[in-house]
Amino acid sequence: MEENFITLDLKEKDLGDNGFVKVVDVLPRVIPKDQWDPEVKCDYAIPQAARVSYAKGTTKTSSDKGLIRYLLRNRHTSPFEMIEFKFHIRAPLFVARQWMRHRTASVNEISARYSLVEDCFWKPKVWRTQGKHNLQGSEEDLTPEESQKAQELYDKGCEECYKIYTQMIDMGIAREMARSILPVSMMTEFYWKVNLHNLLHFVTLRSDWHAQEEIRVLSDAILEMVAEYCPVTVQAWKDYQKDAVNLTKWDLEAFKNNGNKPDGMTKREFAEFLNKVPNLN
Amino acid sequence: MEENFITLDLKEKDLGDNGFVKVVDVLPRVIPKDQWDPEVKCDYAIPQAARVSYAKGTTKTSSDKGLIRYLLRNRHTSPFEMIEFKFHIRAPLFVARQWMRHRTASVNEISARYSLVEDCFWKPKVWRTQGKHNLQGSEEDLTPEESQKAQELYDKGCEECYKIYTQMIDMGIAREMARSILPVSMMTEFYWKVNLHNLLHFVTLRSDWHAQEEIRVLSDAILEMVAEYCPVTVQAWKDYQKDAVNLTKWDLEAFKNNGNKPDGMTKREFAEFLNKVPNLN
Amino acid sequence: MEENFITLDLKEKDLGDNGFVKVVDVLPRVIPKDQWDPEVKCDYAIPQAARVSYAKGTTKTSSDKGLIRYLLRNRHTSPFEMIEFKFHIRAPLFVARQWMRHRTASVNEISARYSLVEDCFWKPKVWRTQGKHNLQGSEEDLTPEESQKAQELYDKGCEECYKIYTQMIDMGIAREMARSILPVSMMTEFYWKVNLHNLLHFVTLRSDWHAQEEIRVLSDAILEMVAEYCPVTVQAWKDYQKDAVNLTKWDLEAFKNNGNKPDGMTKREFAEFLNKVPNLN
Amino acid sequence: MEENFITLDLKEKDLGDNGFVKVVDVLPRVIPKDQWDPEVKCDYAIPQAARVSYAKGTTKTSSDKGLIRYLLRNRHTSPFEMIEFKFHIRAPLFVARQWMRHRTASVNEISARYSLVEDCFWKPKVWRTQGKHNLQGSEEDLTPEESQKAQELYDKGCEECYKIYTQMIDMGIAREMARSILPVSMMTEFYWKVNLHNLLHFVTLRSDWHAQEEIRVLSDAILEMVAEYCPVTVQAWKDYQKDAVNLTKWDLEAFKNNGNKPDGMTKREFAEFLNKVPNLN
Repeated sequence: MEENFITLDLKEKDLGDNGFVKVVDVLPRVIPKDQWDPEVKCDYAIPQAARVSYAKGTTKTSSDKGLIRYLLRNRHTSPFEMIEFKFHIRAPLFVARQWMRHRTASVNEISARYSLVEDCFWKPKVWRTQGKHNLQGSEEDLTPEESQKAQELYDKGCEECYKIYTQMIDMGIAREMARSILPVSMMTEFYWKVNLHNLLHFVTLRSDWHAQEEIRVLSDAILEMVAEYCPVTVQAWKDYQKDAVNLTKWDLEAFKNNGNKPDGMTKREFAEFLNKVPNLN
Repeated sequence: MEENFITLDLKEKDLGDNGFVKVVDVLPRVIPKDQWDPEVKCDYAIPQAARVSYAKGTTKTSSDKGLIRYLLRNRHTSPFEMIEFKFHIRAPLFVARQWMRHRTASVNEISARYSLVEDCFWKPKVWRTQGKHNLQGSEEDLTPEESQKAQELYDKGCEECYKIYTQMIDMGIAREMARSILPVSMMTEFYWKVNLHNLLHFVTLRSDWHAQEEIRVLSDAILEMVAEYCPVTVQAWKDYQKDAVNLTKWDLEAFKNNGNKPDGMTKREFAEFLNKVPNLN
Repeated sequence: MEENFITLDLKEKDLGDNGFVKVVDVLPRVIPKDQWDPEVKCDYAIPQAARVSYAKGTTKTSSDKGLIRYLLRNRHTSPFEMIEFKFHIRAPLFVARQWMRHRTASVNEISARYSLVEDCFWKPKVWRTQGKHNLQGSEEDLTPEESQKAQELYDKGCEECYKIYTQMIDMGIAREMARSILPVSMMTEFYWKVNLHNLLHFVTLRSDWHAQEEIRVLSDAILEMVAEYCPVTVQAWKDYQKDAVNLTKWDLEAFKNNGNKPDGMTKREFAEFLNKVPNLN
Repeated sequence: MEENFITLDLKEKDLGDNGFVKVVDVLPRVIPKDQWDPEVKCDYAIPQAARVSYAKGTTKTSSDKGLIRYLLRNRHTSPFEMIEFKFHIRAPLFVARQWMRHRTASVNEISARYSLVEDCFWKPKVWRTQGKHNLQGSEEDLTPEESQKAQELYDKGCEECYKIYTQMIDMGIAREMARSILPVSMMTEFYWKVNLHNLLHFVTLRSDWHAQEEIRVLSDAILEMVAEYCPVTVQAWKDYQKDAVNLTKWDLEAFKNNGNKPDGMTKREFAEFLNKVPNLN
């Protein structure tokens, strides 16, 4: 007997020293063949739910794709909550810390109270320097000599700490106490379950250039994988949000003022406006 | 080529004038054959996630079933968030109102701003009287004559309102305004997506005897369907929560006091204690 | 002894047949005199929390006002969660239904299971007609004659339903069942507690022209009151969000194409672009 | 002019090497004198909100205290969301990690991307050993000699890591990268804003004996402080939840079976039952 539905594969992506991202499951994972559109895939669950709002008496004939783009453009967010992703993530602990600040997801993480921590630490490829203008970011790289010195210091620190950890464990000290000496560069793993709306919010913040590079590579990997399950939504998000420019009231004033700073606009606001201008020309 | 996984069917349940409950999707819906256990089914996603917490160095050998029961008994709630259900619900609007008070779910509901409301109202089977002791509930039924009178009044009211609604629509009045005359007994429909942990919390409250009967029948139907997908979890929930008895500090005092009211316990607390006693003997 | 802090008054606003909005409490309500700035008021709790992120080694000297505007412009949302408002709201039930769809708030509402519902229904000032182009909204008003007819139909319906409700109550029918005949135009009341970040999200959606007028008047009243407690935040929100224009990737293409529709842009997208143009000139 | 309300003081508690807890604000902080009851204090906001549910037609005359206890006993949770606390917390990073897993709160934390981390690490008073029976906990202490050795190892590790951190900073390496070598025992600070319902849930889990001692001392301090603002609620929570015993279906069976293990009850369940028995006698 032939199956009458398509079952989607589960993708995964290895990011080397930065960790990995694996799709554990997706809702919907099973799509009826008579509703299968290779350009839509999981996206079909969005109009499926949205159309419950438009019952008798509405003359809707728009395509799934058109409806999805309309919904995203007009910030109708609830239908995008109807798709769910479950990932298995591996990342350095300092990245996991940023991750957990997103509250609208479900998480199960390795516990260093129960388990022994493995001798496995994040390894940077380059050592970035502190940014001058942007307090949080970091712009240039060290010279090769400096870089090597940094790497040696760092490796020695990790090694030393893990040795102390092991000694403490051997002395019979509780795992929950012994782990306190381990650096935040230790690797951790967790299951992360999130709906598509909140996932896109995560990606908006964490694939942004303001985000720390070590979380950005994982966020980018997630986006790339999600695009294979929900191609229409991801394209719409790029067109209407990621590649969009938000012109504030003051930007609009500057614009009307032939690109000169209007009275009342601060210097900082004007500098931000000038950064947006290339996109407008 | 033979498939190497099991794909679960989608159940549904018609509740007549009270509405319906349909499973639109479930995560996981596809279960690898080599992990298939007909006594566990979707439940398997709970230990799958929980075991990420118990990595190297733990000597876990418990069965899936044992682990699930352990987790539920000890209120380790996060693994139960790893299962997700999506339902299509039909219910009277006054029931939907109670439903929406549960905030940890995703919803898409019919909009009476966009759509024409159908001539379809909830029909009670019996008319319950106001409870004497329990302000909210209702204990006895009306006599057949009274019941018939109530039904006639009610039917006439619904009919009259729908007629006014139709007249207003015909006059060109906006749907969002015309619907204001419709009674809260009109039927509505919505998609409801919720994880298993929050679903069990919903059922705990809405299948309780304090809940209004009209939401209880729907909640009971949900529980019954979920038991087919997650038999181990539902049984554990029954054993450890639904059929459990919570003895407060004062109940324990009364207990030690041979069932007599101890000083400091209020009459109301003591009455509640006496209600628990039959379960203890 | 002189007090060394300012205690803020609690505002309220009566909206006649549309209901009311009363501030029950606000956090912070008490502001130390040595930190009091009449142009900042409750807003001061935002930099107070945000500055915990910028400890040793940062050379921050920006003013509270500058910092608040910076945070809002750059979507640093968590400091805006540090302010909390508690309102007492009165509104028609169909408005309360839209309200409750916002999940990140705390609510206590009148229960028609416990309480008797009062003979009090929303009264429209004008009857709007169904919009042609915008399915949800409504654009023009009825003629005075039609309007009067609509009002009579509507009033009669409300009156009739309330009469049936009263008869049922007198027959001893449970309140939870008798209320099922009442129209969604009945007035309800609730406490609503929400942080400033989620409140602004509510206002963004509900003071928008897409929102139904009956919720918009309440949302506008809330915004006006909040502006008295948090003047800096509300002004920043207006400058950077409410009065801002979002140019999508396709809008930018149209822009570069001298305002002509580029290939690949849909007609609907282009129509939306043309609606944004007046703000750009 | 005399003030007609009471303004509450803000408490704080220093926990030495374990950190501190400071109340930054509380809602309500200002209580009208004519509603002031020194045995109720902030608790008064609970019946204030709950009573909106009991309007016309209910014959409620219960005291505030009685109503609060009734609501807590019967899991009417929403009125307890009407009280809000804002704390300033200082804790080791590994404790903050556990803290952030509670998602229903607002947080602003020190950022090691922006700020320089201070040379300040958690110092244990005793080194506990790994528990035999309870995988997570830890039961006995080391001998003084072992303890001293552990302390020396640990101190040396912290010192070494901080030295590497400083060297990296001096080399111009970005703060967000340099901090990766710091152990999870470094101290962090954050603002934590949470409603009373979720706060009690936090305390239920984190003041429990299963919780790690380092978070328990902070949780206990929070509970103690909250008891000064909300004495009635905290007492009710102790009576009905903390000091209560939950008897599962199987416990009830064992009970009826004169304390012997009934068929179908697992050994582990029976062992847990025996642990509950002392509370019953």
